[in-house]
Amino acid sequence: MKVSSRSSERSEAERLVHVPLGERAYDILIGPGLIGRAGGEITSRLKGRRAAIVTDENVAPLYLEALMDSLQTDGIEAVSLTLPAGEKTKSLEHLATVTDMVLAARIERNDAVIALGGGVIGDLAGFAAGIVRRGVRFVQIPTSLLAQVDSSVGGKTGINTRHGKNLLGVFHQPDLVLADTAALDTLSEREFRAGYAEVAKYGLIDQPDFFAWLEKNWKPMFAGGPERIEAIAIACQAKSDVVVEDERENGRRALLNLGHTFGHALEAATQYDSARLVHGEGVSIGMVLAYQFSSRLNLASPDDAVRVEKHLKSVGLPTRIDEIPGEMPPTEKLLDAIAQDKKVKGGKLTFILTRGIGEAFVADDVPSSEVLSFLEGKRGK
Amino acid sequence: MKVSSRSSERSEAERLVHVPLGERAYDILIGPGLIGRAGGEITSRLKGRRAAIVTDENVAPLYLEALMDSLQTDGIEAVSLTLPAGEKTKSLEHLATVTDMVLAARIERNDAVIALGGGVIGDLAGFAAGIVRRGVRFVQIPTSLLAQVDSSVGGKTGINTRHGKNLLGVFHQPDLVLADTAALDTLSEREFRAGYAEVAKYGLIDQPDFFAWLEKNWKPMFAGGPERIEAIAIACQAKSDVVVEDERENGRRALLNLGHTFGHALEAATQYDSARLVHGEGVSIGMVLAYQFSSRLNLASPDDAVRVEKHLKSVGLPTRIDEIPGEMPPTEKLLDAIAQDKKVKGGKLTFILTRGIGEAFVADDVPSSEVLSFLEGKRGK
Repeated sequence: MKVSSRSSERSEAERLVHVPLGERAYDILIGPGLIGRAGGEITSRLKGRRAAIVTDENVAPLYLEALMDSLQTDGIEAVSLTLPAGEKTKSLEHLATVTDMVLAARIERNDAVIALGGGVIGDLAGFAAGIVRRGVRFVQIPTSLLAQVDSSVGGKTGINTRHGKNLLGVFHQPDLVLADTAALDTLSEREFRAGYAEVAKYGLIDQPDFFAWLEKNWKPMFAGGPERIEAIAIACQAKSDVVVEDERENGRRALLNLGHTFGHALEAATQYDSARLVHGEGVSIGMVLAYQFSSRLNLASPDDAVRVEKHLKSVGLPTRIDEIPGEMPPTEKLLDAIAQDKKVKGGKLTFILTRGIGEAFVADDVPSSEVLSFLEGKRGK
Repeated sequence: MKVSSRSSERSEAERLVHVPLGERAYDILIGPGLIGRAGGEITSRLKGRRAAIVTDENVAPLYLEALMDSLQTDGIEAVSLTLPAGEKTKSLEHLATVTDMVLAARIERNDAVIALGGGVIGDLAGFAAGIVRRGVRFVQIPTSLLAQVDSSVGGKTGINTRHGKNLLGVFHQPDLVLADTAALDTLSEREFRAGYAEVAKYGLIDQPDFFAWLEKNWKPMFAGGPERIEAIAIACQAKSDVVVEDERENGRRALLNLGHTFGHALEAATQYDSARLVHGEGVSIGMVLAYQFSSRLNLASPDDAVRVEKHLKSVGLPTRIDEIPGEMPPTEKLLDAIAQDKKVKGGKLTFILTRGIGEAFVADDVPSSEVLSFLEGKRGK
């Protein structure tokens, strides 16, 4: 049996964020080396002694063995399933494969499905955990920055259909999140940056001080200093605060979609081709557009839009539609994609707008004509 | 437009059971003619004005047109999907068909999926309603006695897999249940009787007076007198009480499985061949076995087992394993089916046992050797 040396040590820098959701409360641990300590962290919190791990072909070679070793050391009987990497894996066919594997492993209510990977694996495995026996335990081990600060916290799970993204799913909170920050060292610069867009988002929603802190500290955060763990912990705490207040997105939780309505439309316009645009890049451009649109509506100062764009540009994120490589569809088509986004209620356009840095709010009656002329202006037509 | 004459009248005998589940609270209406009044009952409670109806080939010819007419009259835009009747429809393939149809109909969060049919349609459509956009509104229009008193109340939804029945699903409470008692007039005697086993179950769990009332009043109840509505309302109220106390079956709700552990094993042993055994018949035999087993364990008086068997026999329900037509597997095989039942926790056998009429309780440490020798004794080996 191979146990990596890091497995016994708890880093001093490690942080814990508790998500107080009553009987669905859970802990998020953030720090280096958590994959190698997963067994102990799970057995100290969950009753079951079986686990079914879902991972992908990129992540498995890096971390699956260390995770299996740790589980075995702590007496958890585990099986694993390695799926193709990428957004296409969030399909009904793969959901069927995962649920069949989980049932074959005789996972009962107190046993766990473990997601080892990024947002795709987390969303798919979480959906499976939510429907097997009407809900079994779920442990998230997010290995991307995006998953550590966003998709692994809050209980949204789902798959894509021919009608759109994330249209089938359940709310199923994890029982434990292990955000191993050492895993981020293997991310590409581009992937890390894309995740950073979601980190900055929390500052822009309602924490102006955090945004100012990021403007000062993003370099050591990118370089892997203690600022990285700090920033992830603040982001997880921010998401937790919103989720606790509005677990099932009847109101305030929609704020987390800042930048996402424009962003999703851009992703759809590029056919989710990650060579052209990944989710976090869409969010980056989308957040800048949200600030510019808010400024055009005389809600926010134009200076704020300039400040947001400047910061995101400085970390290397795209901030303008024309930075997306390849041909983009006409603006009317982008608007169609916005109208088809699932955050449409009763036919009206819902947007997250803002009155300044850290002052986002939900507007659910934005006229589509305003959006159209704003976007046309942006694209120089 | 055709509106049946009954659609405007509310029967004096109509009953309402409110299920007080906080923000998931809902009403169960019980009485004749509710299908023809569905539109008005829905629009007075739900905000959405679209609906996707799921039904089956047996029920559609009888009630689909009346339901569509009523919805149209009240301004609800509805589409429908008619599936094959029978347990095989509770599959992942049919779930995919239903969710695709619901998404194509652009059902949003406040719109409704409507289940028009028995337990199979309710379980499947409810699962779809629970996962489309992470949950849309759900209206149950149960047309069998079993569905009116059991599966349409309480929020359990699900489909079957090769590993067993109901192994995939969610808890998704309906927003409204319309139990049209006139629909019961078209049930076969056998179907009605099978549903009756679940009615009697509520008396046996914790309402000895209701059981005594049924012993006196089952004949007018079968004949369609006001006793029928009364009995259905009492059964729905009883189920509501249990569900409100333990929505997600962490404890007391398991009592609703009285007779079901043995019953499911018998259903599995007949390969769910409804010509040999339907669910309610399995529950009838299972409840008698639960009383006899409790008596053998010196928990209940043998007189109670005799009384339960006598009553179920008098309404025409089977009460003994050897009444099931065809060859039954050896007792060890039955026990395997019991052990594979999903109500197994940590390997121990969980049974609902009883101390008398209306005194059921959950026992989660029943030794399988006791069950084996009890069943062998019953079968004269």
